[in-house]
Amino acid sequence: MTKDKKTLRIAVDAMGGDYAPVEVIKGAVSAARDPDTEIVLVGPLDIIKSELAKYDTSQLPIECVNADEFVKEGEPPALVLRQKRNASITVATKLVKSGDADAVVSAGPTGAVVASALTILGNAEGMERPVVGGPMLGFSPNTVIMDFGGNVDCKPYHLLSFAVVGCAYAQKLLNISNPTVALLSVGSEEGKGNELVKESWPLFKRSGLNFIGNVEGNDIVTGKANVVVCDGFVGNVMLKFLEGLGVAMAKWFKANLSGKLPDSELDKLKADLLARTVGADIIGGAPLLGVNGVAMIMHGRSQALQFARAIGQAKVVVDSGLVDTVNSELRRIGEKLAGKEN
Amino acid sequence: MTKDKKTLRIAVDAMGGDYAPVEVIKGAVSAARDPDTEIVLVGPLDIIKSELAKYDTSQLPIECVNADEFVKEGEPPALVLRQKRNASITVATKLVKSGDADAVVSAGPTGAVVASALTILGNAEGMERPVVGGPMLGFSPNTVIMDFGGNVDCKPYHLLSFAVVGCAYAQKLLNISNPTVALLSVGSEEGKGNELVKESWPLFKRSGLNFIGNVEGNDIVTGKANVVVCDGFVGNVMLKFLEGLGVAMAKWFKANLSGKLPDSELDKLKADLLARTVGADIIGGAPLLGVNGVAMIMHGRSQALQFARAIGQAKVVVDSGLVDTVNSELRRIGEKLAGKEN
Repeated sequence: MTKDKKTLRIAVDAMGGDYAPVEVIKGAVSAARDPDTEIVLVGPLDIIKSELAKYDTSQLPIECVNADEFVKEGEPPALVLRQKRNASITVATKLVKSGDADAVVSAGPTGAVVASALTILGNAEGMERPVVGGPMLGFSPNTVIMDFGGNVDCKPYHLLSFAVVGCAYAQKLLNISNPTVALLSVGSEEGKGNELVKESWPLFKRSGLNFIGNVEGNDIVTGKANVVVCDGFVGNVMLKFLEGLGVAMAKWFKANLSGKLPDSELDKLKADLLARTVGADIIGGAPLLGVNGVAMIMHGRSQALQFARAIGQAKVVVDSGLVDTVNSELRRIGEKLAGKEN
Repeated sequence: MTKDKKTLRIAVDAMGGDYAPVEVIKGAVSAARDPDTEIVLVGPLDIIKSELAKYDTSQLPIECVNADEFVKEGEPPALVLRQKRNASITVATKLVKSGDADAVVSAGPTGAVVASALTILGNAEGMERPVVGGPMLGFSPNTVIMDFGGNVDCKPYHLLSFAVVGCAYAQKLLNISNPTVALLSVGSEEGKGNELVKESWPLFKRSGLNFIGNVEGNDIVTGKANVVVCDGFVGNVMLKFLEGLGVAMAKWFKANLSGKLPDSELDKLKADLLARTVGADIIGGAPLLGVNGVAMIMHGRSQALQFARAIGQAKVVVDSGLVDTVNSELRRIGEKLAGKEN
């Protein structure tokens, strides 16, 4: 495989997600029409090729790489990756490691994507556990939430590493030069919060980050801080709660406004309301941060549109140099704290 | 003070809340116009009386009880209650203890309301920490969330007591005869969750409650369980997040739909959307559960409408016999678990 310098190659796990391979391949074909995008579809060749045959791909930069196996939802990731050495997510991630792809995109089980990334790409120095996060709400597009769910039991130094990664995200993907950082808590004053927040406060205080203290749930909506740090349990509950709200609001919108406004306007308004509330769906995928490469995590329920968007977002992440910034910032803050603690 | 059997007497902390005493007294006057309601306003008599003079209360069953002091937001509750023995919240709570009032309503600092209730009314047997909860969303009016924020670091037996209280709430206030109970987590399968959830699962399993396992954030919106249990950190973050969303959505509604529908219809739709999302505001106040009496917790930012509603809700809570059910259910589940563990 050769790689054009100007073009980014995205390895796509064709077997990942509830609607794989149909929706994955539909989305990948659509993304392959974008300029400067090459797609590498990874999975059982016969399945991929028969699915690809539905489209005219003769002019599109799509390659296929064989992987006989794949991880199913509910399989324990670590175990399965040892047993299925030729799983699509593993093979796709190895393409990133070898430089044959710039990023891997998968809607397969998050645990398997994370395990592959950790095993094959390796974790960033100072980052014990990788993290997934990003803006959650269109109402506050400049507020990054970390963690969305991978790390449910955290220590203060985990939260600090999420904050460092969140700052890198805000800098490189949102162009915020000196992002403000806050701990998500139940009150804004120092001393308000659970044990984790209270123990994290002094560490954040002396980290050199632009730490503004605690924020509360409502402050996420108003964008009071650029980086809001919480453990993955809280982040995941909020994220899914929000998604549930999005679905309910969309139904409510249809039931209560249909026929009262022109359909086109209604669709536009509904889309806008959803974009402002359930922002995460709009991006399609979020980068796993704290590993040495770009791996995009997606919802299992993603469809073609989300795959196309996740591939687009993968290119943005690669272009931004976010991974390098995460690594250098983790090193910088780690050294600063080590110096202070000597 | 005499008490008509048919009439409920509600002690109102006239000095509690961001808009006290003006909005408290406005709301209390409005509530006093309801049948079978007597109001006892508690606070510095001169302040209360000069505020009451704004209204024609000659025909209304409003009494005033003097309390020279009050607790300010930010004051440490335990300390302040020791120092301010004649604080309005303390005096109002004592009226419940002595039987001179059926419930106390306060929008003062939650910590002070809880401390007063615990000290003066006492905690229910088997309930180490009182809890505040209730339905959170109009989309799922039959789903009670416990805890909304008082208990940020919990052990499994705390969560179990919240579940028992939540079931009593669902039975007595929502007329649900055998409420389903779930632990809020990051995945529905057993074994998914943080340490607290994983440790709580077996306790819930053998509690005899109608335990259906874990639910996720989105399941709150669809009402998958009648009682969803989480620690107060998670509950508080969600509740405030939702409130922030409500404010943002109301603004969005105004900005995007004004002029496109008749104002009256717009107002109705906006009110409905907010009721479905930010349900907690609609009720005005929530009972503190696990103490031997009815104490209603309110938002500091409550205004007259919320005070009137909280007073109405206090009457509903008293009428329902919820406090007795909480006590008897805590005893029953406690005995059941003790029996099993012998």
